[in-house]
Amino acid sequence: MTQPRDVTISPGQGGVTAPAGFTTAGVHCGIKASPSALDLAVLAADAPVAAAALFTTNLAQAAPVVVSRRHLDHTNGIARAIVVNSGCANACTGTLGLEHARQMAEETARALGCTPEQVLVASTGVIGVTLKIDRVLTGIRAAASAMTRTGGSDAARAIMTTDPFPKECAVTVQTPRGTFSVGGMTKGSGMIEPNMATMLGFLTTDAQVPPALLRQALQLSARDTFNAITVDGECSTNDTLFALASGASGVAIDETTYPALLEGLLAVSRELALGIVRGGEGATKLIAVTVSDATSIDAARQVARTIANSLLVKTAVHGADPNWGRIVAASGRSGVMFDVEKATVHVGGVLMFEQGLPHDDAAPLVAEHMKGHEVRIDVSLGTGGGAAATIWTCDLSAEYVRINGEYRT
Amino acid sequence: MTQPRDVTISPGQGGVTAPAGFTTAGVHCGIKASPSALDLAVLAADAPVAAAALFTTNLAQAAPVVVSRRHLDHTNGIARAIVVNSGCANACTGTLGLEHARQMAEETARALGCTPEQVLVASTGVIGVTLKIDRVLTGIRAAASAMTRTGGSDAARAIMTTDPFPKECAVTVQTPRGTFSVGGMTKGSGMIEPNMATMLGFLTTDAQVPPALLRQALQLSARDTFNAITVDGECSTNDTLFALASGASGVAIDETTYPALLEGLLAVSRELALGIVRGGEGATKLIAVTVSDATSIDAARQVARTIANSLLVKTAVHGADPNWGRIVAASGRSGVMFDVEKATVHVGGVLMFEQGLPHDDAAPLVAEHMKGHEVRIDVSLGTGGGAAATIWTCDLSAEYVRINGEYRT
Repeated sequence: MTQPRDVTISPGQGGVTAPAGFTTAGVHCGIKASPSALDLAVLAADAPVAAAALFTTNLAQAAPVVVSRRHLDHTNGIARAIVVNSGCANACTGTLGLEHARQMAEETARALGCTPEQVLVASTGVIGVTLKIDRVLTGIRAAASAMTRTGGSDAARAIMTTDPFPKECAVTVQTPRGTFSVGGMTKGSGMIEPNMATMLGFLTTDAQVPPALLRQALQLSARDTFNAITVDGECSTNDTLFALASGASGVAIDETTYPALLEGLLAVSRELALGIVRGGEGATKLIAVTVSDATSIDAARQVARTIANSLLVKTAVHGADPNWGRIVAASGRSGVMFDVEKATVHVGGVLMFEQGLPHDDAAPLVAEHMKGHEVRIDVSLGTGGGAAATIWTCDLSAEYVRINGEYRT
Repeated sequence: MTQPRDVTISPGQGGVTAPAGFTTAGVHCGIKASPSALDLAVLAADAPVAAAALFTTNLAQAAPVVVSRRHLDHTNGIARAIVVNSGCANACTGTLGLEHARQMAEETARALGCTPEQVLVASTGVIGVTLKIDRVLTGIRAAASAMTRTGGSDAARAIMTTDPFPKECAVTVQTPRGTFSVGGMTKGSGMIEPNMATMLGFLTTDAQVPPALLRQALQLSARDTFNAITVDGECSTNDTLFALASGASGVAIDETTYPALLEGLLAVSRELALGIVRGGEGATKLIAVTVSDATSIDAARQVARTIANSLLVKTAVHGADPNWGRIVAASGRSGVMFDVEKATVHVGGVLMFEQGLPHDDAAPLVAEHMKGHEVRIDVSLGTGGGAAATIWTCDLSAEYVRINGEYRT
């Protein structure tokens, strides 16, 4: 796909309600203990709109994942709203959990005046605990009566678990055929109590997109953003990424404007995804691992992911240790074939390894780079294949162990 | 293979020289800074004997791995001695490193009176640093002139890097056809300086075994022992497992006695492998993850390995948190298909999860079990396939991060 030449992406204000045609609200319904902690959000389009979703590939799927998937299948990619709670994942909760997820959709539908199948559901928080459904339903009614175009930051807070900061962003996309917006919010690898790290993402646009095309664009943009990050290699029971397209801008997405939509989704998704990594548990540094000159993008991604998930690499970065040996060794065990003698390793742009030998004289320079908040690792496999991929991760700190090793109570 | 009925395995004294026909010595040659730190060992058979080896599958292979593999190929599985140094891995050291590994073999051959190809070489320690070859060669001469049948514990110390304790053991195997011994020593996932964790293992027996059969037995016994442990999922440039069979007991291994050899190798390998896990960096607990009722042993192993390498499971065990949700979620993302509704999870023998639902009432009991030094996790996939596998690992502590995050110099 060629890069769109006559498209301009500009940063916008706000998040999911930056695009026209959406309202949202975040409220405290009582799942989280603190009365000031928001724990329920409703995001709605003014009318039923195109919707798409990507769900966790874990075999253990939470009730809201099961229900949302069914609803999208049933409507062929049309939705009016998304309801989401934090503080309880509604996972491993059996048939009662499924009933609760359905009730969340029904209550939202009743409040907004649509069918239950037009409502998608997401939950995040502790696994294996039953939802306080009465509080949730009361919260849904409260949220639905408070929907505004300025509620985005409340909603971004209401989906947080132990995320250190809310994550929302928006861009304006100018094309020769008109201007539209893309907005989004996400919550990352935090835990309401030490349990699974769940990623939830919500993207909106006022471009006019057929559901099938929205789904295709969502998959493609997620591949290099939400699916190109890793905090600890885990995959939760609740991971979900939703996209809604209101069409309110009047800009129709077809073959000509599709690249502009993709660029807009990529811009918002990249910022939100990097926000998840920066807010990773105990994280102090963002690490960008780029593997180039592989025989295929998949091969490049596999090597990059192995490096990004290596505990030895993550702890070395944490300690600002320019330990190229761990990078070489992680590459060599990734399952991808290449000739180590032809590979090179750069850290912070400085050559550390080539022709099977280290450049240890560069170590002090690299150590300085690694003391910063953003660390770049570049590995060329030297296959002549030219394929490349980037995976983002964070360092591994003692704080991660502390957060995740505490008793669940 | 049927379990040998008329075979008795008894614990023995010592390690690699418990079997007849072997001598060894460990000396300080000067790679490690402290004058009292042993850093070079020679293990020799009284004459050329059957030898077998398993090497790292990492694409980045250290010079001693390359040289040892060539020597074994050249002799068709015959060796007289193994020379091993700690403190320097001789990895990523180019043609000079290969020359050094060859010189180690030549010097050992000269001192013992055999061909260089009859000498195998192993190194462990920091990557990318050139061996102080003069010190090593002097050390080899010193070790070769000090070989005894009681040098095993010195040798076990000389191969250590940051291992918290030396690891050696031996067993006596009684069969209707006579008695033989199996001995061994190993060093685990410690680092001389924060670099790759290397596993080196050395097994000896005075059974009389053809090289091809020794290799087969080594592979099979390693599968459920050395290849069934994980500290951090890393695989080093130097990982090597050697076996030598002197034949000095006069007990010939054939179809009838092969199961007895295998039992002996398994017993020694299991104890040494668990020693590596117990001595894992920052480890405070040994975790046995058994996955049963899978469709195949490989599938069971894959699920068990995913659980054992899960940072969330390892930190939960560290904190004595009976977090069955993390175990279910790790199983569900392992890539092996099964029905979560039919799976069960036991921790310390106590049922925590079945039919898609938790048994949280058992949590206090399980938390008590998890406060001990040995934690058992049992997952049944409920496929009706009946295949099972166990993987051993250790917990993940802040100490691991500290050890591996410190600057390399």
